[in-house]
Amino acid sequence: MNNFEYCNPVRVVFGKNTIAKLADLIDPARTILLLYGGGSIKKNGVYEQVQAALKGRKVIEFAGIEPNPRYETCMKAVELARKEKVDFLLSVGGGSVLDGTKFIAGAIPFTGGDPWQILTSGGGALQSALPIGAVLTLPATGSEMNCFSVISRDSTQEKLAFGNPKVYPAFSILDPEITYSLPQNQLRNGIVDAFVHVMEQYATYSINTPLQDRQAEAVVRTLIDVAPDVLSKKDYDSRANFMWAATHALNGIISCGVVEDWSTHMIGHELTAFFGVAHAESLAIVLPGMWQHQFANKKDKLAQLARRIWHVVDGNVDTQARAAIEKTAAFFHSVNMPTRLSDYNISKTDIEKVIERFRQRGTTLGEHQAIRADQIREILTLCL
Amino acid sequence: MNNFEYCNPVRVVFGKNTIAKLADLIDPARTILLLYGGGSIKKNGVYEQVQAALKGRKVIEFAGIEPNPRYETCMKAVELARKEKVDFLLSVGGGSVLDGTKFIAGAIPFTGGDPWQILTSGGGALQSALPIGAVLTLPATGSEMNCFSVISRDSTQEKLAFGNPKVYPAFSILDPEITYSLPQNQLRNGIVDAFVHVMEQYATYSINTPLQDRQAEAVVRTLIDVAPDVLSKKDYDSRANFMWAATHALNGIISCGVVEDWSTHMIGHELTAFFGVAHAESLAIVLPGMWQHQFANKKDKLAQLARRIWHVVDGNVDTQARAAIEKTAAFFHSVNMPTRLSDYNISKTDIEKVIERFRQRGTTLGEHQAIRADQIREILTLCL
Repeated sequence: MNNFEYCNPVRVVFGKNTIAKLADLIDPARTILLLYGGGSIKKNGVYEQVQAALKGRKVIEFAGIEPNPRYETCMKAVELARKEKVDFLLSVGGGSVLDGTKFIAGAIPFTGGDPWQILTSGGGALQSALPIGAVLTLPATGSEMNCFSVISRDSTQEKLAFGNPKVYPAFSILDPEITYSLPQNQLRNGIVDAFVHVMEQYATYSINTPLQDRQAEAVVRTLIDVAPDVLSKKDYDSRANFMWAATHALNGIISCGVVEDWSTHMIGHELTAFFGVAHAESLAIVLPGMWQHQFANKKDKLAQLARRIWHVVDGNVDTQARAAIEKTAAFFHSVNMPTRLSDYNISKTDIEKVIERFRQRGTTLGEHQAIRADQIREILTLCL
Repeated sequence: MNNFEYCNPVRVVFGKNTIAKLADLIDPARTILLLYGGGSIKKNGVYEQVQAALKGRKVIEFAGIEPNPRYETCMKAVELARKEKVDFLLSVGGGSVLDGTKFIAGAIPFTGGDPWQILTSGGGALQSALPIGAVLTLPATGSEMNCFSVISRDSTQEKLAFGNPKVYPAFSILDPEITYSLPQNQLRNGIVDAFVHVMEQYATYSINTPLQDRQAEAVVRTLIDVAPDVLSKKDYDSRANFMWAATHALNGIISCGVVEDWSTHMIGHELTAFFGVAHAESLAIVLPGMWQHQFANKKDKLAQLARRIWHVVDGNVDTQARAAIEKTAAFFHSVNMPTRLSDYNISKTDIEKVIERFRQRGTTLGEHQAIRADQIREILTLCL
C-alpha cells in the first residue's frame, strides 16, 4: 500500500424529505446565491422545497449552468455574486451545477488576474473559496463528496479539471426521491460515470490493497445490480443504493493508497470538448479501447474483476481479463449506452484534433506514464 | 435504507515514516499534553520519533493511561492540563489512550460538576473539547477515526461509552511499521475487536443496503485474510491492510443507513467491568452466544455472511447461518482467542452480577429492543 492522506469533511445528509434541513444547515445571516441548471428543478418540485426551506432568507438566483459547465457562464455568476455581496453558494442540481459552483466559489474572491488560472493550475492557484452547500439531483459525478470540478471554456474548446480541499461542500443533501423525474439518458449516464470512476481507481496494477479492491468492487457490484431497476421503475431502494454508490465511486475512500490511472477521463474530456458528446458517453467510448491497448498493464486487476464481479472461473488471467472487457461493454450496452466513436459519427480524421492537442501539451498518461499522443491515436483507433 | 447523516472530519495520515508529520500537523503556538500508556512507546522508538517531530515545542507529558482507561487516571490528566494551560492533546498509543484523551479533552473545559456526566449522558453533556491529535500504535478500536470513547470507573465498577462530534481527532497518524513491536495477544485482540465491530453493524436484519453490506464484508474478508501473517511475521502490507481495515470497522461508513445492534459490546463491557477480561476477549465470549440466542432475528444476514465470506453454498438459510456462527468461533480460535466464560473461570453464579446490573438499569438491547435482563441470562448461559 502507498502512503496516503484522507480527509473528507463533507456532511452528507441522506434520505427522504431531507431538503427541509437546509433551514438548519445554512446560517440565517448568509446571503445565498442559489445556482441551478436548465430549470428542471422547477418542474419536479425541488425548487419549491428549497424555497420553502429558505423562506425569509436573502436568496439571489442564478440559473442556466449547463452540462459541462462553461467558464463563460460561471463568470456571469461570479459577477452577480460580487455585486450582491453573496457569502454562501447553494448548488441545486447535478454534478455540473456543483462543479460550476465550486469554480465560482474560488473565482469570486480570486485576485491576480483571470480565475481560469484555477483550472490551468489544477487547483493550485485557488486562494480561498466561499462556503458551498449542495442539493444533489442526479447521482453520477461524486462531486457532492469531493473537492474536484471540471469546467469547459468555449473560446479555447478546453475542458479542464481542478481539485482543492477549499471547495469541499460544507454539506450535500441527497434525497433519492428527487431522482424519480430524471430522464433515462441521465440515469444511464450516471450509472456509467460512476462505474468508470471506480475503474480509474481499480484497473491498474495491484500493490496489495485488498480492502480498497473489495470496497471498489462493492460499488461496482451495487451499480450493476441496481441498474435494471433504476432504469425501469421509480423504486426508493434502487435509487438510494444507486445514489450512495455513485457518491462512493469518487469520495476518495477507494483511492486511498492505491495506484490510479485517469487516462480514460483525460481522453474523454477532449471528446466532449471537441465533439460535444456527454461526459459519460465519452467514458464508455474510451474505456474498452483503453483496456485493450493497456492489456498487459491492467490484465491482473481486470481478471480479478471478472472473477469477483461476473464470477468468471474458467480460463487463465488473459482470458479472464478479456472477459472483463467484454462484460463491461455488455454492461454499458445493457443500459443503452453506445461504446463506439462511430455511434456519434466521429471519424478517424476527427480524432486527429484530440491527438494534436495531447501532442502540443506534451501530456503523458497512464499508471506508468507511458501513454503519449501516438498511443492515444492507437487507443482511439480501437474505439472507432 | 434508513435516512442518515455522515460527517467525519478526521485527517488520516497513513504510511511509513509519517510520525515526522506531527511537526506540520500541530500549530507551533500550542502547549501540548502528550498522553501515553504503560511506556511501550519508550521501548519501540515511537517516543523518540514523537519527540524529534516536536523538538522545540512546549510539551507536557502524562503517562499511565491504562487499558480500559480509568476515570480516576483521566482526572489526574485533567488536573495537570488545567494547571499547565494545555491547549492541545496528543494521544500516542492504542484505542485506550485515545479514548482516555477524548474524555480528558471534554473534561478539561467542563463546568457544572463532575465530568463523569459526559459518560452518563452518552456524550450529550459534553460542552466543548480541546483539539486532539493521535499517533495510533495498535489497530483495533477504530477510535482514530470516530468520535466515540469508553471509560471505566473503579469506584462503581462501571464501564460507559460516549460519543460526540467535538472529540473527533483533528488528525490520526497511522504508521503500520510501529505495530511490529506489538505482542501477540494485542494483535489477536485487535483483529477480534475489529471483526466484532463490523458484525455489530451487519448481523441484524436487512433493509436493502447492498453497498454497506459489501463494504462490511470487505473489512471482514480483509481481517480474515491478513490474520495469519499479522500474527506470524512482521510484514508491512499485512500490517497496513490490518490497520486500515480496523479503522474502517468503526469509522461510520459501514453503518450509514443500516440497522445496528451493539448488544455484544454492551454485555461485554460489563464482563470487563466486573471480571477484568480484555475488551476483545469479552466480545469473543459474547458474540457466538448472542447469535445463537438471536438466531431468528439474525439468520438472514448470518447466512449471507457464510455464503460471501466462507463460500458456504450448500444447505438452507438456517444451516448456512449456523455455519457462520461455527466459522466465526473457529476464526477466533485460529487467532488463539478463547470464546467461553469458563476459559476465564467465570461461573454461572458470577454472571448474576451482570444480569442484576442490567435489571437495575432497565436496559433493553438488540435491533428489536427485545433483550432484557432475563434474555441476557440466557445468552450468557450459552457462553459458559
